[in-house]
Amino acid sequence: MTVPIIRRLAALRAKQSDWTRAGEKVGVVPTMGALHAGHLSLVEAAKAACDRVVVTIFVNPKQFNNPEDLANYPRTEHEDAIKLAPYGVDAIYVPDPDQIYPDGFASNVAVAGVADQMEGACRPGHFDGVATVVAKLFLQTGAHQAFFGEKDYQQLLVVRRMARDLDIPIEVVGCPTVREASGLAMSSRNLRLSAAGVKQAGMMHPILTSLAAELAAGGSFAPLGKQAEADILAAGFDEVEYLSLCSAVDLRALETAGGPDHPARLFVAAWLEGVRLIDNVAV
Amino acid sequence: MTVPIIRRLAALRAKQSDWTRAGEKVGVVPTMGALHAGHLSLVEAAKAACDRVVVTIFVNPKQFNNPEDLANYPRTEHEDAIKLAPYGVDAIYVPDPDQIYPDGFASNVAVAGVADQMEGACRPGHFDGVATVVAKLFLQTGAHQAFFGEKDYQQLLVVRRMARDLDIPIEVVGCPTVREASGLAMSSRNLRLSAAGVKQAGMMHPILTSLAAELAAGGSFAPLGKQAEADILAAGFDEVEYLSLCSAVDLRALETAGGPDHPARLFVAAWLEGVRLIDNVAV
Repeated sequence: MTVPIIRRLAALRAKQSDWTRAGEKVGVVPTMGALHAGHLSLVEAAKAACDRVVVTIFVNPKQFNNPEDLANYPRTEHEDAIKLAPYGVDAIYVPDPDQIYPDGFASNVAVAGVADQMEGACRPGHFDGVATVVAKLFLQTGAHQAFFGEKDYQQLLVVRRMARDLDIPIEVVGCPTVREASGLAMSSRNLRLSAAGVKQAGMMHPILTSLAAELAAGGSFAPLGKQAEADILAAGFDEVEYLSLCSAVDLRALETAGGPDHPARLFVAAWLEGVRLIDNVAV
Repeated sequence: MTVPIIRRLAALRAKQSDWTRAGEKVGVVPTMGALHAGHLSLVEAAKAACDRVVVTIFVNPKQFNNPEDLANYPRTEHEDAIKLAPYGVDAIYVPDPDQIYPDGFASNVAVAGVADQMEGACRPGHFDGVATVVAKLFLQTGAHQAFFGEKDYQQLLVVRRMARDLDIPIEVVGCPTVREASGLAMSSRNLRLSAAGVKQAGMMHPILTSLAAELAAGGSFAPLGKQAEADILAAGFDEVEYLSLCSAVDLRALETAGGPDHPARLFVAAWLEGVRLIDNVAV
């Protein structure tokens, strides 16, 4: 079964309006395409929870702080549609660029607090771009639920905060990170690694989970984090951009894991073969 | 007939959901209270165009750059409710502050371009506050049309741009400025003028309309505007903060009125008795 591809907002709104009139619950899975098993797990979660599911594919220039990263970002619309076919989604929304940023577009949605550190600090403007485009996609699709992966955990918190703050009537659902057998978090950027790079990148997750276990046992982050950074570099990574222990609720930096009432999370960004990879695990 | 006052978002959403299910068209008139004939003309326009009308009253701290102005802003909820009673509006939404800015609120909506000059330049953060709270009120009420006065013409353009850019499915309707017999634009801030001040303030509009006529006849703004500024000061104003000739479409500064294809507008902000008054007229 081929899924209809919609490129114009008016056509999307027409569908959405039929669904809403019928009292159907609509779910949206916002993506930038280059779909992998992680995205498909979000589609499965949406299908299980909603009557109608829209997958959006839009490589959003506003959230790329690095023009080279934008240029290199994989665009695989045909393959994406084939991958989605078995899931019975109701529409793939691949908006023409003027449906998102028409002439004269001048607005920006910014989220303070959870967007300030880590990805927000390393990629200036990134979360403004994310919050702005996701607000638009939420309002364009009129969805009742949106599904995001915990692989981009900070993004999940930013998007959830934005939707609550602007009173967009949508529930933001976080779904577990999907990993390769090695533990490597699925990411469209993995496509840019060599076979050797994929193998080296697979070392990241065991290092993180072992660090998380030591922290959960009461260890202090300063020395343990330093050792883990050394381990990541020894595994073949070129640079660790950050390795942070943060509150899972508000992303404040922590020195020790805070116990069950104050869940903590480990976050990492590191470079390998010119590719920037991120991951995070619960402590 | 007393109009129900709603203070909690959940109660507002319940009403809105009933109305939407019944296929009714909802209009919203966002105000900061201290209602005068200008606001009531917006209510009339909303009543004429919509099945259901919600008037919101919220003195939004985020759009006051001056704490003294915020402290002095008149709060007259009881009188406002009495004034609205004859109009048959369906609800007055006077949100408790935590319904607009709950703990942890961290988002900001900014509009570039039309928000940069005049009020945007003189009142830093003002239009961010306006765009953010109005986005929330649009989404909280779920209204199909919103009614704003041309007295705050720049605000009208900022709000319209914001709603289009974020794809909020609402039409922003501009309504003509309502004036005292003298020509003084109705404003809640007029309440802070003495009787003599009100009389002096009434000189502003004739000066503006006469300047507009000279510009429409082909005059150049630089000398004519300088003379009009002198006239405003001679009428008793203490300071002219700006007097600008701008495109009515994108607020770009103009040196001459642009003809019918490029409508122009005159904008003024001036101080009298410690009160900041603004006005604008078509050229």
